[in-house]
Amino acid sequence: MRRKINREDIIKKGLELIHLNGFNATGIKEITDAISIPKGSFYNHFKSKEEFGLAVLKHYEKGTIQRLEGILQNSSHLPLSRIRLFFEHLIERMQEKFEYRYGCLAGNFSSELGDVNPAISQATYDTLEAFKARFDACLQEAVAAGELPADTDTAGLAEFITNSWQGALVKMKPSRNAYPLEVFLKYLMEKVLTH
Amino acid sequence: MRRKINREDIIKKGLELIHLNGFNATGIKEITDAISIPKGSFYNHFKSKEEFGLAVLKHYEKGTIQRLEGILQNSSHLPLSRIRLFFEHLIERMQEKFEYRYGCLAGNFSSELGDVNPAISQATYDTLEAFKARFDACLQEAVAAGELPADTDTAGLAEFITNSWQGALVKMKPSRNAYPLEVFLKYLMEKVLTH
Repeated sequence: MRRKINREDIIKKGLELIHLNGFNATGIKEITDAISIPKGSFYNHFKSKEEFGLAVLKHYEKGTIQRLEGILQNSSHLPLSRIRLFFEHLIERMQEKFEYRYGCLAGNFSSELGDVNPAISQATYDTLEAFKARFDACLQEAVAAGELPADTDTAGLAEFITNSWQGALVKMKPSRNAYPLEVFLKYLMEKVLTH
Repeated sequence: MRRKINREDIIKKGLELIHLNGFNATGIKEITDAISIPKGSFYNHFKSKEEFGLAVLKHYEKGTIQRLEGILQNSSHLPLSRIRLFFEHLIERMQEKFEYRYGCLAGNFSSELGDVNPAISQATYDTLEAFKARFDACLQEAVAAGELPADTDTAGLAEFITNSWQGALVKMKPSRNAYPLEVFLKYLMEKVLTH
């Protein structure tokens, strides 16, 4: 017997298509066709494409935060090593899972919709701030461990790290290789995260 | 007598609308309506929306390169000061001309289309590389002037600078303020561009 398609199935398929093709380029019918449900049943779950986009972003944020916390809160490594390990993990993931396409959904939404759709703009801001907060917490641990100077502006540094990674992803897409990501990590570890 | 609308007029209006709203979100009819020409005359100048997008990007690249060279080749300042002055100029421009919206057209294209449209992807790559080449040249001057170590990988550093600025712009849009840009410039000058 065929399982009933639920809200989460629509979100997951939507994430897959929007992550690759962008929000405006992905039609609702394309999503419902891909999971073989009538277009109308989309509206049993979501009032509008905007509401759907917000749900997709929330779903993506949850998964990313889990990955972030899994590495950045792992006290078997020193705090700065955790940051390096996290980005090494992401660089590998970009290759193996995404072949250097897709980028970060929050960055994509921010770039495509951050200046025109107020609700999605606010949500992408909140998502990027949530990522940043995890770096900030880890940087505070690095200060406490003496890996960074006591007067480090950890929030500013976390802002720089979060944003610069987004920029590396922007260039990764047309490059279709790891070079922009590796350059980011090299300067981050060798120049920025130093005493 | 009304001046005849030419190819450049369509490109300029297209740049304005695509820069704010994105490539997929901007219809050809929206552009032709905005300059009061029939939609059909668009196709006297451009075979397709893709060809038009490439022309708009080229137009944008030309203007940006002029601004880059105007500051980065001004030998009345030391090379690293020129880089700082260039970004200070851009930060001011983002506020005054764009109210912290728009971002960089090349970065926007890269983010929106870099993983799905091969022709535009290649063109955005070339545009970002053209920007990077201007930073690289200035960094080589900084090495020659003793502002940076002799063994500096100027190409790698130029890649890092170009991309990290794009990332600052990604966060600027939903933030709608200069903070991400200022944080970028602070860490660039205080940590990355040091001997």
